[in-house]
Amino acid sequence: MSHNTFGHLFRVTTFGESHGPALGCVVDGCPPGIDLTEADIQPYLDKRRPGQSKYTTQRQEADQVRILSGTFEGKTTGTSIGLLIENTDQRSKDYGEIKDKYRPGHADYTYDAKYGFRDYRGGGRSSARETAMRVAAGAIARKILPPEIAIKAGLVRMGDKAVPDEVRDWDAVDQNPFFAPDAATAEEFAAYLDDIRKKGSSVGAVIEVVASGVPAGWGAPVYGKLDAELASAMMSINAVKGVEIGAGMGAAELTGEENADEMRFDDGKPVFTSNNNGGVLGGISTGQDVVVRFSVKPTSSILTPRATIDKDGNETEIVTKGRHDPCVGIRAVPIGEAMMACVLADQFLRHRGQCG
Amino acid sequence: MSHNTFGHLFRVTTFGESHGPALGCVVDGCPPGIDLTEADIQPYLDKRRPGQSKYTTQRQEADQVRILSGTFEGKTTGTSIGLLIENTDQRSKDYGEIKDKYRPGHADYTYDAKYGFRDYRGGGRSSARETAMRVAAGAIARKILPPEIAIKAGLVRMGDKAVPDEVRDWDAVDQNPFFAPDAATAEEFAAYLDDIRKKGSSVGAVIEVVASGVPAGWGAPVYGKLDAELASAMMSINAVKGVEIGAGMGAAELTGEENADEMRFDDGKPVFTSNNNGGVLGGISTGQDVVVRFSVKPTSSILTPRATIDKDGNETEIVTKGRHDPCVGIRAVPIGEAMMACVLADQFLRHRGQCG
Amino acid sequence: MSHNTFGHLFRVTTFGESHGPALGCVVDGCPPGIDLTEADIQPYLDKRRPGQSKYTTQRQEADQVRILSGTFEGKTTGTSIGLLIENTDQRSKDYGEIKDKYRPGHADYTYDAKYGFRDYRGGGRSSARETAMRVAAGAIARKILPPEIAIKAGLVRMGDKAVPDEVRDWDAVDQNPFFAPDAATAEEFAAYLDDIRKKGSSVGAVIEVVASGVPAGWGAPVYGKLDAELASAMMSINAVKGVEIGAGMGAAELTGEENADEMRFDDGKPVFTSNNNGGVLGGISTGQDVVVRFSVKPTSSILTPRATIDKDGNETEIVTKGRHDPCVGIRAVPIGEAMMACVLADQFLRHRGQCG
Amino acid sequence: MSHNTFGHLFRVTTFGESHGPALGCVVDGCPPGIDLTEADIQPYLDKRRPGQSKYTTQRQEADQVRILSGTFEGKTTGTSIGLLIENTDQRSKDYGEIKDKYRPGHADYTYDAKYGFRDYRGGGRSSARETAMRVAAGAIARKILPPEIAIKAGLVRMGDKAVPDEVRDWDAVDQNPFFAPDAATAEEFAAYLDDIRKKGSSVGAVIEVVASGVPAGWGAPVYGKLDAELASAMMSINAVKGVEIGAGMGAAELTGEENADEMRFDDGKPVFTSNNNGGVLGGISTGQDVVVRFSVKPTSSILTPRATIDKDGNETEIVTKGRHDPCVGIRAVPIGEAMMACVLADQFLRHRGQCG
Repeated sequence: MSHNTFGHLFRVTTFGESHGPALGCVVDGCPPGIDLTEADIQPYLDKRRPGQSKYTTQRQEADQVRILSGTFEGKTTGTSIGLLIENTDQRSKDYGEIKDKYRPGHADYTYDAKYGFRDYRGGGRSSARETAMRVAAGAIARKILPPEIAIKAGLVRMGDKAVPDEVRDWDAVDQNPFFAPDAATAEEFAAYLDDIRKKGSSVGAVIEVVASGVPAGWGAPVYGKLDAELASAMMSINAVKGVEIGAGMGAAELTGEENADEMRFDDGKPVFTSNNNGGVLGGISTGQDVVVRFSVKPTSSILTPRATIDKDGNETEIVTKGRHDPCVGIRAVPIGEAMMACVLADQFLRHRGQCG
Repeated sequence: MSHNTFGHLFRVTTFGESHGPALGCVVDGCPPGIDLTEADIQPYLDKRRPGQSKYTTQRQEADQVRILSGTFEGKTTGTSIGLLIENTDQRSKDYGEIKDKYRPGHADYTYDAKYGFRDYRGGGRSSARETAMRVAAGAIARKILPPEIAIKAGLVRMGDKAVPDEVRDWDAVDQNPFFAPDAATAEEFAAYLDDIRKKGSSVGAVIEVVASGVPAGWGAPVYGKLDAELASAMMSINAVKGVEIGAGMGAAELTGEENADEMRFDDGKPVFTSNNNGGVLGGISTGQDVVVRFSVKPTSSILTPRATIDKDGNETEIVTKGRHDPCVGIRAVPIGEAMMACVLADQFLRHRGQCG
Repeated sequence: MSHNTFGHLFRVTTFGESHGPALGCVVDGCPPGIDLTEADIQPYLDKRRPGQSKYTTQRQEADQVRILSGTFEGKTTGTSIGLLIENTDQRSKDYGEIKDKYRPGHADYTYDAKYGFRDYRGGGRSSARETAMRVAAGAIARKILPPEIAIKAGLVRMGDKAVPDEVRDWDAVDQNPFFAPDAATAEEFAAYLDDIRKKGSSVGAVIEVVASGVPAGWGAPVYGKLDAELASAMMSINAVKGVEIGAGMGAAELTGEENADEMRFDDGKPVFTSNNNGGVLGGISTGQDVVVRFSVKPTSSILTPRATIDKDGNETEIVTKGRHDPCVGIRAVPIGEAMMACVLADQFLRHRGQCG
Repeated sequence: MSHNTFGHLFRVTTFGESHGPALGCVVDGCPPGIDLTEADIQPYLDKRRPGQSKYTTQRQEADQVRILSGTFEGKTTGTSIGLLIENTDQRSKDYGEIKDKYRPGHADYTYDAKYGFRDYRGGGRSSARETAMRVAAGAIARKILPPEIAIKAGLVRMGDKAVPDEVRDWDAVDQNPFFAPDAATAEEFAAYLDDIRKKGSSVGAVIEVVASGVPAGWGAPVYGKLDAELASAMMSINAVKGVEIGAGMGAAELTGEENADEMRFDDGKPVFTSNNNGGVLGGISTGQDVVVRFSVKPTSSILTPRATIDKDGNETEIVTKGRHDPCVGIRAVPIGEAMMACVLADQFLRHRGQCG
């Protein structure tokens, strides 16, 4: 991964700021002959799009994607695919206050420290708006993957409320505004987040992404490990502070007897009796579900004033009045799915390249 | 990161198997004119070397490193640095049983699934032996970093025993065989691990790595984020299942008020009143300590028989009799330090390249 | 260089087809704080733009570039710069005949062989239209380079007419429609090409690109050599079949006495008494002019029927009636300049990264 | 290509100096299950090895290669292959004089300009000794390529003597000390070079490399073009100053009628009636022979004194008394073959990755 590009054979390069004229993306290395039109991408963008419930920012972004290249008569040609989303809702006036003050928990200070100045409108390049392009690229990645691979994701924790480990009702995900894989927990989330939202506060979340149907053998030693690339992909999403594969951080509390996933045959096919490894051993897929979880911190754009400094060397405080999400983790669900799809597509092509 | 290489301007490429003739590494992109001899590297290798206490494998590996290129009269020349460690203790007979059986929790099955066969001697390329070369590269990386940067690491959890969050006595790390940053907890670890070891069992661990003195401004949006690269670097270490930056997975349970690290001036210098962000905002360093934690799963090489299958399609069980570590996390401490050093060195050079 | 991206720290990724909706480019790694607006880029595009004299295709392409990201208040921010040119003159009907027949000397057959089908409208991705984006990226690259670096290019051969080796009147370049660095030869070119054009034929050319003011020390062993990257950059331009540095292919006919550029001091500064090496020794710049030449083949889009085959397995012949250039080498002049600028900018940043 | 690494899926990273302890190489991305022992590599190294006739340097280098990793029971495992050649003939005293003086035509001055100092023993990293590792990597690359691909190379020009264009007797190549593809010209070369050698002079050469049996469809737009990568690969060889594909620089003198390679069917298979394009159109292979030529400058290590400067700011002169080649182009023949093999292997794997 290098600055604004990720992937090796399936490569995604993005550009665009929150309040600039447009966001864009180049998807390179896509196999030829795959059916692809805007209609294949738009539903995923719509899922990520804000303003769909009271639990996400009320900013209105149409997020209408155009394919500018790389397809012909509805099929990918094998050449680079250019994608573009024009920004339509650029209400810059909302952001006037942050021009000089550094918002705690945001990248304002670090961008200034690195570059000497920054595009302060809505966070500029550091805005989660960039993730629209990951979702678009992920939609293409899904079409590359063999059809038996299914990628599901859900919000499994919000603050101190969590979907129980043994419950993963993926059908429920699209039935509630939190993408929670459990209807009962979704109701808990609703009550909890209503309270957070009314207080002008925010809260963190954990997202779980599961890819089933991944064949054994994808991935690569040593620095191209499937789990290393998933870690990087998820950690690169805005506000993510932790990534787990399988047993994750909890693996530290297990003994070897508990952790070693035993093997048996089922109908002549190797199977595992547990999945502490999250579908990855030695950086290579086992054929089990690939299971990744990541945490998303609460946004610092809250109504309670926070102490900060300004560019001119004064101590001050700030209240972020923009239209923000009480739980940015919700919209991270489709982004996590997209990153899983992109990593798998790249590993698939690389595996096919090396091993035929 | 691509297969056996990682880094962009500071690039590390490794080769070698557990029981092959040698391990090696090419470090490319090192600035010229830096003092470097084997004596700069060996102490770090010695720290990682097994057989130094009863808590690590009794395998004897001298791990004597030779610099084969890239230096002249004791200074780096700016050209690629070749490093070599000859394998001396290749007791292959220990590993005879795993030729045909897949060890649960190891990469035996996945290497076969990917490549069609594998070097079964001691895990071959999937062995943690490879990490010797990361440690060697890390020693070079440290010499590139400005002298005000200090990298410390310690084992902060072993099974259900943990160093309290508020205790980080880095001076204690080298005073106990666990690299624990707390003498009192180290004694708890000792009693606990003795028991594990005698039962022929194993246990997981959490390692914390802290880099202080990193200036604000290193890192890069969007896929070259400092934390994304740290996540990838740590997750690529053998047996790692989770990576956290700052508040980590726990960020999910915080509110925006709790999580937003406020800013003040201290002696005219911007400071933060807390470090939930782990020293990284928007993928760029804040000037605070860069704080990373990762979990290491317990090795599956234990004396309790585990159910598995063999290459010929039979269900069977396996007991791993090799010389193994009851807590492989211990030796991961210097490896984590090394990966931190490599990631920082690469980001430092890239920052200097782009921003002067 | 990887598919549709080139460069390491200064990275250019392009997309777009001849007759698709738009061409685009992402320039990543640009230093922050550089003045940049469309007005800095447009003049170079205008120079490459066709239809400016009777000697280039009469196709009308406005080639109006828009900056979509990466600048703020007229300065680069350090983030990825998105560029877009909408295609306005998409007269696809001109290209109907080539739908099924393979044009000799074009990429029609090879794209079909690789991808199974192709966007046949105007050559699709294989069209020289893509080079508009190289020119745009080159305009940005120039702004990164220290001001003492000047890049000049000219057409020094057309068929059997050539600018004499000892004549390089760079001021003449913009005074004639061939970018010839000699007014007298330009007149020869005019008469010669008029004849070619009237016959519906075409002819090849040699372009020379010279960068003066490049300091000694840019470049890198062994596969990152300045000349190796220039070779790749120039050979990647459409229709280029040969690349030379300094004495070029002619070096084969020299003796060591003739070829070795001797050194002397001039005003205390090391100088060379000749430049057979073209400003590069061991892949690293010498401080002399960096001199590159490349040949451009004649387009096969001519009025004389040529034997070819079609997709359905028939032998046939083809006459290309599109609006084409009698000497495509003319428009390659600004493209060669742009590629020189991009390679130098990337090497400059990498040198600064490694050597400070 | 990045500093000391080249290739994408088939990646070669080299290290080592002329007079250091060893040269080495890591070959990453090799498919698994390929028969590979030192015996597969050694013959190619022997072909490059100096001291085999009076026409090459009398330096004695055994160039005995060892495989240190990546194979098991004689087959590649798919993991990184480490190769090592110990330097045995390190007669440093020969090179004492060049410690302070810059040899014209060598990289002495540019390495000092870049890095501040250099390993002056035998040219250090800039020595052609590095190419031994390219030859070793090339031997592995050949084994990856489908068996119908044959790579041949020969020296086709030495000074003003040349093998006629219409003569390519590949069987003759191994029958004369110049690798000339024509017995008659080889005799001319012998007389000519004897004279050069006796005078203590040197002369340049042109090498032609031909790959037959390459299927149509390898390569990639736009910056991953097969010819762009060949150009880079060949230009990165020591002393190379020009690279041509097919008609090469001569394409500038052709008309469209002459240059367009017409197509016909032969036995139902598409064929071309000429090969001005050198087997590449639009950066993708046509199925014809891939034909590359490159020039090698004469070494500046000659007995005639040449004017130069020293590090201390004095004008002086130098005579290079080391054991050198009167025509370094001879030994470039196996190197060119190796680079062709490496580029093709990488493109093959990438094509398989993207297109299946």
